Amino acid sequence: MSANEALLTLEGWFTYHDFRKINWEKWKKASIEDRQAALDELTSLMRVWNDAESETDGSTAVYSVLGHKADLCFIFLRPTMGELDELKTAINKTRFADYTKTDYSYISVVELSNYVNNPGQDPKANPHVRERLYPILPKWDHFCFYPMNKKRGEKDNWYSMTMDERRELMQTHGLTGRKYAGKIKQIIGGSVGYDDWEWGVTLFAHDPIELKHIVYEMRFDEVSARYGEFGIFLVGNYVNEEALQKMFAL
Amino acid sequence: MSANEALLTLEGWFTYHDFRKINWEKWKKASIEDRQAALDELTSLMRVWNDAESETDGSTAVYSVLGHKADLCFIFLRPTMGELDELKTAINKTRFADYTKTDYSYISVVELSNYVNNPGQDPKANPHVRERLYPILPKWDHFCFYPMNKKRGEKDNWYSMTMDERRELMQTHGLTGRKYAGKIKQIIGGSVGYDDWEWGVTLFAHDPIELKHIVYEMRFDEVSARYGEFGIFLVGNYVNEEALQKMFAL
Amino acid sequence: MSANEALLTLEGWFTYHDFRKINWEKWKKASIEDRQAALDELTSLMRVWNDAESETDGSTAVYSVLGHKADLCFIFLRPTMGELDELKTAINKTRFADYTKTDYSYISVVELSNYVNNPGQDPKANPHVRERLYPILPKWDHFCFYPMNKKRGEKDNWYSMTMDERRELMQTHGLTGRKYAGKIKQIIGGSVGYDDWEWGVTLFAHDPIELKHIVYEMRFDEVSARYGEFGIFLVGNYVNEEALQKMFAL
Amino acid sequence: MSANEALLTLEGWFTYHDFRKINWEKWKKASIEDRQAALDELTSLMRVWNDAESETDGSTAVYSVLGHKADLCFIFLRPTMGELDELKTAINKTRFADYTKTDYSYISVVELSNYVNNPGQDPKANPHVRERLYPILPKWDHFCFYPMNKKRGEKDNWYSMTMDERRELMQTHGLTGRKYAGKIKQIIGGSVGYDDWEWGVTLFAHDPIELKHIVYEMRFDEVSARYGEFGIFLVGNYVNEEALQKMFAL
Amino acid sequence: MSANEALLTLEGWFTYHDFRKINWEKWKKASIEDRQAALDELTSLMRVWNDAESETDGSTAVYSVLGHKADLCFIFLRPTMGELDELKTAINKTRFADYTKTDYSYISVVELSNYVNNPGQDPKANPHVRERLYPILPKWDHFCFYPMNKKRGEKDNWYSMTMDERRELMQTHGLTGRKYAGKIKQIIGGSVGYDDWEWGVTLFAHDPIELKHIVYEMRFDEVSARYGEFGIFLVGNYVNEEALQKMFAL
Repeated sequence: MSANEALLTLEGWFTYHDFRKINWEKWKKASIEDRQAALDELTSLMRVWNDAESETDGSTAVYSVLGHKADLCFIFLRPTMGELDELKTAINKTRFADYTKTDYSYISVVELSNYVNNPGQDPKANPHVRERLYPILPKWDHFCFYPMNKKRGEKDNWYSMTMDERRELMQTHGLTGRKYAGKIKQIIGGSVGYDDWEWGVTLFAHDPIELKHIVYEMRFDEVSARYGEFGIFLVGNYVNEEALQKMFAL
Repeated sequence: MSANEALLTLEGWFTYHDFRKINWEKWKKASIEDRQAALDELTSLMRVWNDAESETDGSTAVYSVLGHKADLCFIFLRPTMGELDELKTAINKTRFADYTKTDYSYISVVELSNYVNNPGQDPKANPHVRERLYPILPKWDHFCFYPMNKKRGEKDNWYSMTMDERRELMQTHGLTGRKYAGKIKQIIGGSVGYDDWEWGVTLFAHDPIELKHIVYEMRFDEVSARYGEFGIFLVGNYVNEEALQKMFAL
Repeated sequence: MSANEALLTLEGWFTYHDFRKINWEKWKKASIEDRQAALDELTSLMRVWNDAESETDGSTAVYSVLGHKADLCFIFLRPTMGELDELKTAINKTRFADYTKTDYSYISVVELSNYVNNPGQDPKANPHVRERLYPILPKWDHFCFYPMNKKRGEKDNWYSMTMDERRELMQTHGLTGRKYAGKIKQIIGGSVGYDDWEWGVTLFAHDPIELKHIVYEMRFDEVSARYGEFGIFLVGNYVNEEALQKMFAL
Repeated sequence: MSANEALLTLEGWFTYHDFRKINWEKWKKASIEDRQAALDELTSLMRVWNDAESETDGSTAVYSVLGHKADLCFIFLRPTMGELDELKTAINKTRFADYTKTDYSYISVVELSNYVNNPGQDPKANPHVRERLYPILPKWDHFCFYPMNKKRGEKDNWYSMTMDERRELMQTHGLTGRKYAGKIKQIIGGSVGYDDWEWGVTLFAHDPIELKHIVYEMRFDEVSARYGEFGIFLVGNYVNEEALQKMFAL
Repeated sequence: MSANEALLTLEGWFTYHDFRKINWEKWKKASIEDRQAALDELTSLMRVWNDAESETDGSTAVYSVLGHKADLCFIFLRPTMGELDELKTAINKTRFADYTKTDYSYISVVELSNYVNNPGQDPKANPHVRERLYPILPKWDHFCFYPMNKKRGEKDNWYSMTMDERRELMQTHGLTGRKYAGKIKQIIGGSVGYDDWEWGVTLFAHDPIELKHIVYEMRFDEVSARYGEFGIFLVGNYVNEEALQKMFAL
């Protein structure tokens, strides 16, 4: 196996997680007309985003975020980086943006690692692969997001291991994940070259306890125990248009 | 023992620690009517929270915080993540919120580790377990909060140890804790998947020296000495409605 | 020797270091009347603090701070945490506070370690011990403050050593300190459970070079070389009422 | 080989990466005249910069930046540090600057390491070397930037290795880079003594996936796996004058 | 050799590096009269500082700073800490200060280590030593500043080495420095007990490439490779009164 094969990954949609804090004081000081106009602009955008969900256009979801780090998270999956850029600018030009501020974000591309590939096939011809590279976001009740690296320590160094060693650890890790089938849906964004960590992980769950259970159980897998490095964690609840109206109602 | 058993934890209420700083300059510039309205909204909320303390509704406590990191800490225990979200939004919509700012917070779920379980029992049928998973916050005079991880170092790696090794260290740790029975009440929040550290620990004490003694003594337990990683520490004093009125009186 | 004895420490006054930055632009824009009123409130407080210096009431000192991290440091020693809380609120309610901002602070309790205890005595009956637990702050010309931890590394781990090993290292360290008798006065605040580091050290000196010499010389003691971890350092000059008036005069 | 030779590097243009965030709220509140004036000033500068691209004058490019860390990146290559200083001041004096803020930047000098030198030649007489030291920025569709260090760990220490060991690792690394010929153009800025990391790397690509592939593949090279330390990553899309007008149009 | 001798260092002037960012928007909005008044106050101060350069009074220099971390650096060398404090307050009281903000600073004292002492001499009687302890700042075209520590790692621990081992490493390091005689002038500020790192290094150069070369070459010296820890780096160009007028001219 050539080094090149050893490194092959499959990429799907580019992703942008836009974590926004609401300036509540400003919102409360705004006139009812200004608030309505701001919400109308946002819901118009949300409808455009929702109508456009398809393998050619991408997918979008909005979640609330608990705690002080953010209030809302917009998750965008799009075919090109240019579209992510346009989206960001379009949101920033809305009146809604004037009441919110992006204090955290994450840029990545949906990724399937070669550790799971079947050699000799065009993986993108496989509909299961396509579904994972171009996923329609599930809109389950809860989500969490966290960025992560593989460690390059002086003793435990992921990038100094052979492909076979890495594959074995990843496959065991995959078995842990499979226990949560139907309970957890995960999207792995590769962000090497794009953002501060190597991957951004988004998990969706019907029951928020499952978010805790899967991350905790996986931490005992050798690949996480010895090689995983984790950044901040953000957790929240699904917000549809109605929930958003209620959230902003005074 | 299957890996799954090895990882089983019990979860109770979801928790939100909301650490707020007061904008004193703005408060002092406000009219007496505006200040009264802001305090009235807060005390109304506090009464709702206090009246609702029960195993079905959750529990709430308010503490002052010393030093520059925060001035107040609202501790919320609630049955669902959705309620934490609603609480946050409800507070942010009050006039009181306009004079304060959340610069730190913590999201977790009250957790009992399986290290203390009796096999073959439904632990949630045990009233002592229920009391610990759904605790009414004690309102003792002093509290401290800190987040922590278990180390995943190249030599000392908690997540690479066997269940038996981990249980033994945790049981010794538990013995240290038991020396402080009646002096310290502790609530462990599991936050893997929810917030930046793996656990958030809240300690309550009648005598603030006991907060120091227990954390210091425990630091010599092998589980903390070799495997504990600690974040920031926040300490403060219990604040009831009357104390709050006094705190904000000009 | 029981584990408990091994951990015994003696605690005296609770301490609050309040590091404040001056908003000079706002100060210069204020009217002469407003500035005078702000200074009058501060000097009234300072006189109350100075008049109250005694073993029952605590002690207070005010220092300037060099560099951009702060402009002033108020050091408060008080019998209870509640008093520290009241002091903080009282300062924040003054007009003086509107021209300053606390960007750093430290909470601890004056501590004597058991490494220096004589067994079989009530240490608090010893007047020398009492003087060190309830010290009147010396008002020498210069001070520095820094927080510190003892390392819990994978090889060098203070908390995994025996009591005898730790005592020996601390006694050697104490000998270094004794060379600076009359030149340096030090107050050790224990902050385990209270603030982000395990100790906060305040040194006072007539000659600021001695602050550098003692910290540098001690760094070669094994206890610091191998086990000390240090946070930020802040240094400044003593400020009495007259110096404060001069500092704020335009 | 003398130590001096071992350290010889070739330097070309000084570089300034100016990462700016747009204050959209302020922009939207500005009058159409003020916005036009601000854009006119910027495009005038851009034309001067573009007209001046040559080996004697330097080179300039403007890119958008994805995510919350910045909105625009101005890349300046100039013969002297004084010119970088003048550029910075000139931009800050424009009306355009009032709507933007530099939250991140990087200062370096285009560098070729001696690992690739042919002994006995004047490298700057070589036109291929000159092209790499005084490059005209390619204006390809995508770019990324990241700062990096070589590790000085207790076991893996780049600076304790011999010249031959370092050269061998760098040459293997170079072979990985050569696979991306035509797909990736890279500019290495040496920043030892100038900025917080030892190097700043700028990559240009037609296809943004190639940015990910090269950085990921290189991470498996021993020189990166064991000795590379990486800072933040910023990624974006090329912006010409027309795209800039569109970006700022309301 | 006693431990005390081993630690002896020589100290000269106290130093304050005041790194300031300019609020350009505010500057541009100011009236021409206000701007003139602000510049006049600054240039008056600068003339006082320049006139006072001598072994009894200290020395001063002003440099621009590249990049976003600062715009200007005022370097003050003075006989006492009190004078540094007065200087800081005096600048903060000027109108000039209202258009700038100190986001970074460094406090230290010019230091000669005992590694270079000749035993049995009063070093301060030596005019070469005096020149190095009480240096008139050179006003060369370029400068850089960085803070540094000596490592106290679990394997590489500077403070656990013998005096002889340390002296040998420092002497080799000194030989590297001597190669840059006439090209680089360096001032070492000891900051143990005063600021967050153990030393602050200021280098001056006619050619900015020499700043890079010396720091890079020294990084291969064992004392830096294994024991050096470096903070941020700031670089800039000399600014005399005329250059300052030009910098602020609109």
